Amino acid sequence: MSTIAEYDVMSPACPSRVILSRIGDRWTMFIVLALAQETMRFSQLKERLGRATPKVLTETLRALETDGLVARESFPDSPPRVEYSLTPLGRSLLEPIAAMRVWAEAHVPEVLASRARADV
Amino acid sequence: MSTIAEYDVMSPACPSRVILSRIGDRWTMFIVLALAQETMRFSQLKERLGRATPKVLTETLRALETDGLVARESFPDSPPRVEYSLTPLGRSLLEPIAAMRVWAEAHVPEVLASRARADV
Repeated sequence: MSTIAEYDVMSPACPSRVILSRIGDRWTMFIVLALAQETMRFSQLKERLGRATPKVLTETLRALETDGLVARESFPDSPPRVEYSLTPLGRSLLEPIAAMRVWAEAHVPEVLASRARADV
Repeated sequence: MSTIAEYDVMSPACPSRVILSRIGDRWTMFIVLALAQETMRFSQLKERLGRATPKVLTETLRALETDGLVARESFPDSPPRVEYSLTPLGRSLLEPIAAMRVWAEAHVPEVLASRARADV
């Protein structure tokens, strides 16, 4: 009951299921994509992400920090400066998230065409 | 303004952003993974997914049908039979979603260890 092979997202009680929900969350994906470019302060992230409320951004960053995907570093400047970056674990998420992004951007025309047909 | 290269999930108004939210949704991912195995009736899907309320399952299936990812076929049996399957577009989603699943299942120990540390 202890090998990696035993984790299965299709099994309701498996902890991998909650992790899949976390990494599939759109704000998680946007934050990972943004931090892949550079370390950012909260205000920079907020500007980069657009339409994220401070509440959602704060909650998502805190969850990503708890899960070990994002590192938060404070500097004793005046005013205090806080910077967010991807940890090595967070960086390993880039590849699957980038694949989701590529799919989403590549299939916009087909999805929109299907929606238009469904609307008739 | 009309080439695929212009779609960018990091741009708040881009339609690819809503599509990324849709495909990253956990129920979307579970349904795509389940239907990758075989065509299923609603009751089979519900059993396979576990912990999905009929409401969430119905809404997600309807959204996936609208977006052209899932096909719904009714058979005039008694009682009527309805089957769900992946369309070719839905099948093309399997690869990125499987990559997310592999990441989630592979990193359970690290994420749980990080949560335990955060709890101290």
